[in-house]
Amino acid sequence: MGLFGDFDHHAMAQDLSIAAWDNYPLGFLDTAARFLPESARLQWARSGHPDISAFQHDLYRGVGHGRLWVMEQQAGPVNWADWNALPLPGMVRAWTWEAFAHGAELVSYFRWRQLPFGQEQMHSGLNRPDGMPDVGAEEAAQVKSEIDLLLREEGEDALHTQAARVALVLDYPSLWMAQIQPQGADMAGFGVLLRYYSAARRLGLDVDIVGPQQDLSAYALVLLPSLLHVPEVLQHQLASLTAVVVAGPRCGSKTAELSITQPLPPGPLRPWLPMQVRAVESMRPGRHYAVDGGQGEQWRDLIEPQAGVAVHARYEDGWPAWLSHGRWHSHAGLVNEALLIDWLAEAARQAGLTVAPQPLPEGLRLRRRGRWQFAFNHGPGLAAVPVPEGHKLLLGERLLPAGGVAAWLLNPKD
Amino acid sequence: MGLFGDFDHHAMAQDLSIAAWDNYPLGFLDTAARFLPESARLQWARSGHPDISAFQHDLYRGVGHGRLWVMEQQAGPVNWADWNALPLPGMVRAWTWEAFAHGAELVSYFRWRQLPFGQEQMHSGLNRPDGMPDVGAEEAAQVKSEIDLLLREEGEDALHTQAARVALVLDYPSLWMAQIQPQGADMAGFGVLLRYYSAARRLGLDVDIVGPQQDLSAYALVLLPSLLHVPEVLQHQLASLTAVVVAGPRCGSKTAELSITQPLPPGPLRPWLPMQVRAVESMRPGRHYAVDGGQGEQWRDLIEPQAGVAVHARYEDGWPAWLSHGRWHSHAGLVNEALLIDWLAEAARQAGLTVAPQPLPEGLRLRRRGRWQFAFNHGPGLAAVPVPEGHKLLLGERLLPAGGVAAWLLNPKD
Amino acid sequence: MGLFGDFDHHAMAQDLSIAAWDNYPLGFLDTAARFLPESARLQWARSGHPDISAFQHDLYRGVGHGRLWVMEQQAGPVNWADWNALPLPGMVRAWTWEAFAHGAELVSYFRWRQLPFGQEQMHSGLNRPDGMPDVGAEEAAQVKSEIDLLLREEGEDALHTQAARVALVLDYPSLWMAQIQPQGADMAGFGVLLRYYSAARRLGLDVDIVGPQQDLSAYALVLLPSLLHVPEVLQHQLASLTAVVVAGPRCGSKTAELSITQPLPPGPLRPWLPMQVRAVESMRPGRHYAVDGGQGEQWRDLIEPQAGVAVHARYEDGWPAWLSHGRWHSHAGLVNEALLIDWLAEAARQAGLTVAPQPLPEGLRLRRRGRWQFAFNHGPGLAAVPVPEGHKLLLGERLLPAGGVAAWLLNPKD
Repeated sequence: MGLFGDFDHHAMAQDLSIAAWDNYPLGFLDTAARFLPESARLQWARSGHPDISAFQHDLYRGVGHGRLWVMEQQAGPVNWADWNALPLPGMVRAWTWEAFAHGAELVSYFRWRQLPFGQEQMHSGLNRPDGMPDVGAEEAAQVKSEIDLLLREEGEDALHTQAARVALVLDYPSLWMAQIQPQGADMAGFGVLLRYYSAARRLGLDVDIVGPQQDLSAYALVLLPSLLHVPEVLQHQLASLTAVVVAGPRCGSKTAELSITQPLPPGPLRPWLPMQVRAVESMRPGRHYAVDGGQGEQWRDLIEPQAGVAVHARYEDGWPAWLSHGRWHSHAGLVNEALLIDWLAEAARQAGLTVAPQPLPEGLRLRRRGRWQFAFNHGPGLAAVPVPEGHKLLLGERLLPAGGVAAWLLNPKD
Repeated sequence: MGLFGDFDHHAMAQDLSIAAWDNYPLGFLDTAARFLPESARLQWARSGHPDISAFQHDLYRGVGHGRLWVMEQQAGPVNWADWNALPLPGMVRAWTWEAFAHGAELVSYFRWRQLPFGQEQMHSGLNRPDGMPDVGAEEAAQVKSEIDLLLREEGEDALHTQAARVALVLDYPSLWMAQIQPQGADMAGFGVLLRYYSAARRLGLDVDIVGPQQDLSAYALVLLPSLLHVPEVLQHQLASLTAVVVAGPRCGSKTAELSITQPLPPGPLRPWLPMQVRAVESMRPGRHYAVDGGQGEQWRDLIEPQAGVAVHARYEDGWPAWLSHGRWHSHAGLVNEALLIDWLAEAARQAGLTVAPQPLPEGLRLRRRGRWQFAFNHGPGLAAVPVPEGHKLLLGERLLPAGGVAAWLLNPKD
Repeated sequence: MGLFGDFDHHAMAQDLSIAAWDNYPLGFLDTAARFLPESARLQWARSGHPDISAFQHDLYRGVGHGRLWVMEQQAGPVNWADWNALPLPGMVRAWTWEAFAHGAELVSYFRWRQLPFGQEQMHSGLNRPDGMPDVGAEEAAQVKSEIDLLLREEGEDALHTQAARVALVLDYPSLWMAQIQPQGADMAGFGVLLRYYSAARRLGLDVDIVGPQQDLSAYALVLLPSLLHVPEVLQHQLASLTAVVVAGPRCGSKTAELSITQPLPPGPLRPWLPMQVRAVESMRPGRHYAVDGGQGEQWRDLIEPQAGVAVHARYEDGWPAWLSHGRWHSHAGLVNEALLIDWLAEAARQAGLTVAPQPLPEGLRLRRRGRWQFAFNHGPGLAAVPVPEGHKLLLGERLLPAGGVAAWLLNPKD
C-alpha cells in the first residue's frame, strides 16, 4: 500500500482471485509521495493528490485480474503523517466514489470508531471516540444512497468495468533496478510512472496499469515510462503489437542481470526504436534544459537516431528530446508536465483516441465505469465538468466544487 | 535548563528551598528553541529572544516557591551552539538586570575565566584567557554599582518580588502528552506556551508561570495555553475561581492515562466551556486559514459550541476560532502573534487589568519588581520606554538603545 | 583526493618522489565541496568549480616536491554523486590541459571502458560499454595532437614548471584544529583556504600551495588564510621573510597542543602583527556585518591594534576589518569575494606583482607553465582572454567559449 514496491505484485498475485489495498490519500503525501515538491504537499493537503489514489486503484485492479477492493479507506485525519489535515468536506464521499469508478467492488473504512485510547487514538474513524457518527460515517451513508439512485437509473449491468484503451506497463524489476542504481537522487521509485499516468489523465484518458506479462493486443496506446528491463515475454508481444507505443527514458537499458544492454540501449527495443543512447545525464533540482516548448528536467538520454527516425523536439544543445519511428515514440528525458501532455496527446491522436481539446484543470479527473462517466474535482476552486450536450448529471453539478463528484450516463454506443 | 521538560519540575521541587537554572540566551537559540523559525535565530542572534530567558526566570521562580537563582549566566560567546555570536554591547548587563527584575537573588556567571585549553577553550567567561577582564566582567561590575545606586534611592524593601496578576499554567504531564502524540510535527514542546507568554508580555503584563497545584485564587487572569490534561486538584480550583481564564487548543483533551476525554474535549472543562471538539487538524508550515483579522496556523480544534457561548472570531470556513462563555475564553487554534495579542488584550481588560494601548515594540519588555519598574530593549534599534509622566529614569533613557536597560520607581499606590 | 584532510600530506610525502591524485571535478561538487552553496553546485554542474581542481593540482604538486600526476581523471559522468551531470563538450580536454598547465607530467583517465556490468556500470570511461570511443577518448586524443603541436612550436624546455610568485600555506594540523573546534558550523575544512586561493586567481595570479616547512624566501606574496597554529620552523622563516604576508582570521590563535596562545592571538605572529584578538564571533548564514565596500560573513576576530598599525577597513560597529603593519596584512574576518579580491590586489601590488586591472570573469582562470600561458573558461558564456598585444593564440580564441582552452607563448623575458 502507498506506492509500495518491495515485492513483485504481479508475480505474487498469479493465483489470487482479488487484490485489496489501503488508501490514505492525505497520509500518503507525507510518506509514499516524498518525491513530490513541498508545494504539492500544500496544494493537495486536504484532498490528496488527484492521481496517486487513482494510480493505485488502476494498479491493484490489474494485480487482482480485474477485481479490486479497498481494505482500509481513510475516513478523516490520520495520526501517522508529519501533519494530519482534515479532509475537505465531501472528500470521504469523493474517495469512495473514486474507488468505485476505478472498479472497486468494496470500500471498507479504517476505522469503525476512533479509539479513545492507545497509540492510534488520534486516528479518526467513521465514528467519533464517543461513538457518535463523524463526518466519514455521514459521507459513507451518502454514497450508499447515491449508489441506490444510480442502480435504479440503469441497473448493475451499466456498472461493469471494461478495459481502458491505454495501458501503462509497470515492471517491478525495472523499479528495483532504478532504485539500486538511481544515478540521480530523485530518479528511483514511482515518480516517473506517475508523471506519465498524470499526463494521460489530464487528457481525459482512462488508463490500465499492467504487468509486462499482460496481453496488450487490445490496447490502442501503450506507455512504457520506465521499463529499464524488457522481459522476453513482452519483447515477443511487441513484435505483433498494433498499438502506438511511447517509451520513456532508460527504456531497454538493462538486461535481466542488471547489466547495460548490448547493443547499447534501447537494446531489445532497437527493432522498433532504431537509435542508440550514447550517454545519460541526471540533473539536480533547479537544473533544466530548454526543449522546444518547455523544459527538460531530472534525466536525459543522449540519443543518436538512425535514418528514418523523426525528431519532433530537441534540447537547446541539439540532442533529440522526442523522437518517433512509425508507431513508436521515444522520450529522451523527463519534461515539464504541460510539454509531456502535448507529446502524449500527439501519440494518443495517432492511436485514434479522442483526447480533451484542452488538458483538464489541475484538480479535475475523469473515470468511466461501464456506461457511467464520473468526474472528480480535487480543487482548488470550481472546475467545469466536460459533460456532453444533452446528458443529464445524476450526481454533482456542471461547475463542480472542490471535493465534488459528478456522474452521468453515457450513450450505449459511446 | 533551556526549556527542559524531561522531568516534572514542580513535583521534584516540593521540598526544595530555592530553584536555580543556567541562562544562555544566545546558545538557546540553536538548541532549546529549535521551534523558532530561522528568521528569529537571525533577528535575536546577539541579544537572545526577548521572552525565552524571561519565561524561564518566571518558571523557575515558581518552581523555587518564589526563590530564584541563576547558577550559570552566559557572559560572552559560548562554544556549543552551531554558531556563536558576540552578545550586543551591554547585553551581559541587561541579562543580569533582567534576572534581578524577574526576582533572582543571585546571578553567577559561567565562567570566571575563559580557559585557554581543553574542550571548552572557546567558551568565553568574565575574564579572558590571559586573566584580563573581558566585557562580561566590566558589565557585571557595572550592574554592581547600579544596584548600589538603586538601593541608595529607596532601600531593599522596594525590591521585594510580588506576585503577578497573570498566571500561566505549565503542566509537565501535558507537555509529555503533546510530545508523545504531537499529531503535528511542530506541536510538541514549549512553543505553544511561549506564544501565549510572549503575547501577554507584549501587552506589558507580568506573568507568573505556575504548576497546576498552585493556588490561583489571587490572579486576575489565568492562561492555560496547552493544558492537555487537567489534574483533579486544578479542576477543584476552577470551580471557585474568579479570574478570567483563557484556554488554548487541546485543553482538557486527555485523561491522566493519556486517553481522549469523554464527554469529548474539553472534557473536564465543559462546565465552564460548554462546547465539544468534534475533530482536530494540524497544518504544515505554509498552510493557513484566514481568521477574522489574522490567520490560523499549526493547529485547530473544530468546536461545536452550545447555546450561550459567544463566538468572537471564525475561520474562513465558518468554524469558531475564538469563543467565550462568561469569564472563560477558548481559542480553537494557534493564530499569528498580532491576533493573539488582540484576543488576550480583550481577556485582560475583562479581568480589569491595564494593558499597553499599543503592543510593546517587538524587542521591548517590561518587568516590575517591588516598586521598581524595569524595561529591556532586545533591539533591533531604539525603543521608546513607556515611563509615565513625572517619573524620573534612574537607569537608561526614554529612547532605549538595543541592549539597554531602563528603570524607574513607581508610586507606592501603583 | 577531493579536498581530503585526514592525514598530513606534507609529512607523509617527505620521502616520496611524486604525488598523484584523483580528479573528479563534477563529482566533487556533491561530495568534497559540501561547503559550497547549492547555487554554486548548479552554476558549475557541467564544468566543475573553476578553482577546486586547480587548488588540488597546486597542492599535490607541492606535496610531490614539484612532481604531479593525475592518477584518475573524470572522463564523463560518474555514478557516485547525488546527481551526475554530463561534462560540457570539451571539458575532458580542458581538465586535461588544466592538469598539464598546473605541472602534471601524466594524466590517466578513469576508466578505460565503461563497464557494462556491476556496481560501477553507470560510471563512464574513455570508451563506451560497447568498446567504441566515447567523448572522453576523442577529447584525450585531441589533447595528444595539441601537445604535439605545442612541442613543435617551442620544444619541451618551454614547458618547464617554474615556482609561482605567490605561496598559500596549507597546514594540516591547523585544518584539524579548525575541524575539532569549528566554533561556527561552516568554518571547518578547506572552505577558507579556497576563498583566498580563488581571490588570488581572479587577479590572474598563479599560486603555489605549500606546507609550513617549505622555504618561502623566493615568494613575493605569502598567504596564510587559516594558519591557526604557526609551527616553529615557520616562525623562524617569518623573521627573515621579505615577502608581503596576508594573514586571515584565526591565524596564530593556537599552540601545538591546541590551546589558546598567550599572549593572546595572533600569539607568535605578534612581532609582525602588533595587535591582540580580544574575542571571536561566528555568524550563521544570513548574518552579515557591513564592511567598507562590502560585507563580513561567517567569522570575525575582534582586534585591538597597537600603535603603528594601519586600519584600512572597519566593520559597521567600528572594529577593524583589514589592518596592516609594514609588509604584513591582517584580515579580521571573512568577507565577500569582491572585497577580498580588492584587499588581495592591494597586497599584491605592494609585493610588486602585476595583477589583472579588473578581476577575471567568474569562470575564467589563467595558469602559466614555463613560457606557455594557458587560459580556461569554465563558463557560463564567452569570456575574453587577456592575451597581450602581438601574441598569437596557439590554442583557442580570444573570445573563449565555456569549456574552452586558450594558450599562447610568452616572451622569454616575461
